[in-house]
Amino acid sequence: MLKDLVLKNRSYRRFQEDAEIKKETLKSFIELARITPSGANRQPLKYILSNSVEKNAKIFETLAWAGYLKDWPGPDQGERPSAYIVVLGDTEIAKDFGVDPGIVMQTILLGAVEKELGGCVFGSIKRSLLADNLSIPERYQILYVVALGKPVEDVVIDDILDDDIKYWRDENSKHHVPKRAVDELILNLD
Amino acid sequence: MLKDLVLKNRSYRRFQEDAEIKKETLKSFIELARITPSGANRQPLKYILSNSVEKNAKIFETLAWAGYLKDWPGPDQGERPSAYIVVLGDTEIAKDFGVDPGIVMQTILLGAVEKELGGCVFGSIKRSLLADNLSIPERYQILYVVALGKPVEDVVIDDILDDDIKYWRDENSKHHVPKRAVDELILNLD
Repeated sequence: MLKDLVLKNRSYRRFQEDAEIKKETLKSFIELARITPSGANRQPLKYILSNSVEKNAKIFETLAWAGYLKDWPGPDQGERPSAYIVVLGDTEIAKDFGVDPGIVMQTILLGAVEKELGGCVFGSIKRSLLADNLSIPERYQILYVVALGKPVEDVVIDDILDDDIKYWRDENSKHHVPKRAVDELILNLD
Repeated sequence: MLKDLVLKNRSYRRFQEDAEIKKETLKSFIELARITPSGANRQPLKYILSNSVEKNAKIFETLAWAGYLKDWPGPDQGERPSAYIVVLGDTEIAKDFGVDPGIVMQTILLGAVEKELGGCVFGSIKRSLLADNLSIPERYQILYVVALGKPVEDVVIDDILDDDIKYWRDENSKHHVPKRAVDELILNLD
């Protein structure tokens, strides 16, 4: 059932780094992305796939991890993602990428969860460093990075207390994510 | 399998209008939206649900249908959506809604497909008319509208010819959507 996948699709930030993700697996995620709806069907998104130690390192150093966990600089060696998908906007096709990146990345992550993988979306990226590290031509705007791996952390959804939406980790390194209640999300204007 | 849902989740624009979608069904889609990842976990999106004839009409008249089908002003009575979800940004929570709307709407649409429904995302909306029609307070920015219903049209994915991405309808009213090949989407910079 879809809900099981959606529930299991948390933002994971600690992985079994030596669990290889094959290029074919990453390509299967792009095949999923390919068949999603796209604004005016322009399909302006392009992707860079990475699953090698060297290329992964070049991406890892450009990412800002878990803003709310001030004492945690990101995963240690051994717990880093084993693959990445860099999501680019092709400026020769469009200047504004609208709602496409969210559609695509959620689809990729649900596809990952179905394969017992998981990941996290990064919007906070050292973009010029990443462009340098991967020699990305200027034509492509770096939009987001999806980190992927075999998760080794527990992530749970909690109710919100005192309107505090900051995620946190408990003494057992379990990651807690407070989510608003459904009734808070639905506007009743009648 | 997720791929079956993603494939079945085309942008549908013609529906069996009298096929009722219950409020509970719409709420189940918001429950799915609730448990998706959200940028910095802010969860700034709010939703208006509509499944009544009157409210649906107030939304329908604000939507621009299928830009590439110049001779088609939108679905006739009897083939219009039986429900809508208006996606709002709560400006008291955030000013920028980033990637959240795409994540949420794709998840809602996959949930709809799982229930033998389908829909279409609208970004081209007469926003001030919609705000008036539904008395939406200024605090909420109208981001997108998701139209939902029981699809009565066939939508197929084709390969792209001559770089033409415009969708079109054939003589049997089958809707064709040209999609780029996977190899065109993956950048090989090595």
